[in-house]
Amino acid sequence: MGFSKDNLTGFILALLSSGFIGASFIIKKKGLRRAAAASGVRAGMGGHAYLLEPLWWFGMITMIVGEVANFVAYAFAPAVLVTPLGALSIIVSAVLAHFILKEKLHKLGILGCVMCIAGSVIIVIHAPQERSISSIQEIVNMATQPAFLLYVGSVMVLVFILIFYFAPQYGHTNVLIFTGICSLMGSLSVMSVKALGTALKLTFEGRNQLIYLETWFFMFVVATCVITQMNYLNKALDTFNTAIVSPIYYVLFTTLTIVASIIMFKDWDGQSAGSIISEICGFIVVLSGTILLHVTKDFERSSSFRGNAGNYTPLSPTLSTRLCSGNGESLKHDVEEGPSSEEYLQIGYFKFTLDDVTIC
Amino acid sequence: MGFSKDNLTGFILALLSSGFIGASFIIKKKGLRRAAAASGVRAGMGGHAYLLEPLWWFGMITMIVGEVANFVAYAFAPAVLVTPLGALSIIVSAVLAHFILKEKLHKLGILGCVMCIAGSVIIVIHAPQERSISSIQEIVNMATQPAFLLYVGSVMVLVFILIFYFAPQYGHTNVLIFTGICSLMGSLSVMSVKALGTALKLTFEGRNQLIYLETWFFMFVVATCVITQMNYLNKALDTFNTAIVSPIYYVLFTTLTIVASIIMFKDWDGQSAGSIISEICGFIVVLSGTILLHVTKDFERSSSFRGNAGNYTPLSPTLSTRLCSGNGESLKHDVEEGPSSEEYLQIGYFKFTLDDVTIC
Repeated sequence: MGFSKDNLTGFILALLSSGFIGASFIIKKKGLRRAAAASGVRAGMGGHAYLLEPLWWFGMITMIVGEVANFVAYAFAPAVLVTPLGALSIIVSAVLAHFILKEKLHKLGILGCVMCIAGSVIIVIHAPQERSISSIQEIVNMATQPAFLLYVGSVMVLVFILIFYFAPQYGHTNVLIFTGICSLMGSLSVMSVKALGTALKLTFEGRNQLIYLETWFFMFVVATCVITQMNYLNKALDTFNTAIVSPIYYVLFTTLTIVASIIMFKDWDGQSAGSIISEICGFIVVLSGTILLHVTKDFERSSSFRGNAGNYTPLSPTLSTRLCSGNGESLKHDVEEGPSSEEYLQIGYFKFTLDDVTIC
Repeated sequence: MGFSKDNLTGFILALLSSGFIGASFIIKKKGLRRAAAASGVRAGMGGHAYLLEPLWWFGMITMIVGEVANFVAYAFAPAVLVTPLGALSIIVSAVLAHFILKEKLHKLGILGCVMCIAGSVIIVIHAPQERSISSIQEIVNMATQPAFLLYVGSVMVLVFILIFYFAPQYGHTNVLIFTGICSLMGSLSVMSVKALGTALKLTFEGRNQLIYLETWFFMFVVATCVITQMNYLNKALDTFNTAIVSPIYYVLFTTLTIVASIIMFKDWDGQSAGSIISEICGFIVVLSGTILLHVTKDFERSSSFRGNAGNYTPLSPTLSTRLCSGNGESLKHDVEEGPSSEEYLQIGYFKFTLDDVTIC
């Protein structure tokens, strides 16, 4: 074990983040339902009654708090620790949906939850220590080491090939094209978010990093990566079923992020072979659990109604991506399946995201 | 890591055992099919053509070799390591059935396999060292320590209550009664098998333990426990569906065996909290993977034909139990479902066990 204070802070923040984000969806949905019941007009029908519903706003705030906690967690603990713990928000959503919204959780879904927890515990036990960083300069040094430059270069080349060659030809038939692009960009997003988060942490500790050009450069990188990632996530969700996109995206995104973190922050330096293998196994277990949860959710799709918990893709590292990922979702349902009575809620919820909050 | 030579021997033997046992079912089934094709009479119809089929005998020998390897593995490595690795034989069966017998493996079944492997790796990495034992006397001392006597006492009381009070009343409605009895007895079986195995190992090393009454006493305990366990496993399989009995039995049996081993052999003494938690998580992962494999096998039940791989319960520690567990299986199918064309093979296979080899 031997958890450093910073690791512990990051770990607790990541847990809180998952809890808040997972709960926010349930609270908002509850708010939407209550608003629809009170006004008689569902959000998807053009009603905006939910804006008067305190519960809905409470859910929105819960989500923002969760996203901020997630962002700050990256400043304290290695991405190898924080990223996989994101899977726990799916569990929180699924469990709360079961009890509060009475959405039936498939028995294999429970198994998926158990696996996510067991895998997370293994990852946490074997997580490497966060290296103490004293200035943005250090991060720049890490980001410009040959191995990481090679990674960034490969990602850029791959993304360009995917965008300009494969996307026009196969983008609408092969799910890996769009999800691949946003996963590749996502790994760079997290690295730059981590750099920025660390810079802000240092600034708050009294070592102002905002005077350096590098800090602003990372801010620019975060914006660029997140917008690209978000754009292609929407395309993927527009084109394919969430139940297919979500697990593939989660696996690719988390794997690439961990690879990037290992290269840039040398997370595995000084770790024993046993610890590294345990981490990899724990990670595989979390991935398996997530896939199981997503796949079994699909089993119930025809019979029970589609919960927010199910459609949420809690996989992107920042506020804007998460909010916007829902947008494509709603469009897709509109076009492909036609809105059911329950999906109006859904669409209404995302419409709000599209029209009013559009951060991206 | 820091694997001792004995642990490594036990680990390799457990792996070989799983490989042999898993493969034996596929080889035997292949032999049965070939015999049926050659003679035109299926085994279930009363044909004994498979006795002339070398492939069938090869499968039988493979199974016995696997069982012996499993028995010897207990003499070298802790039960905490050997028992969960038994799950790998299900994987071997499932994978070979997919490629050789062309039985379709459900996609979630593959996920189950991945989990069993990941969980096993975690268990192996964190497995405790086997304590070196120099005589049967030492084992007797371990078996008579107050904590273990309390465990044995509790097991006996529970088994008696289950057999004489619950079994007559609820045995045929609640699956936990019969599986509970054989899991409780199973944990004592493994402990006595381990004692006996260690005594034989010492004897082969030149320190003859057969001169001690204690060795013969353990032989008696092995026989008693195994016969009781086997008897109630058959009852469980007679009464309930294999797909329900197998995962419940596996979970109960493996958990109780590990608990017994921890109490008797103090496996966890001197292990760090991190190692113990990792082991528990690894164990949970293997259990989840096994459940997933068993449950998803049921998904295909109606469409594809029922493979031997599916019906095998590779969970009991000794040769006789394993052979005999098949017997109840065949009876149940006969009564409940009526033999389908494919199940004749099955029944023929088990009939042989019943009529000719009846070791128990």
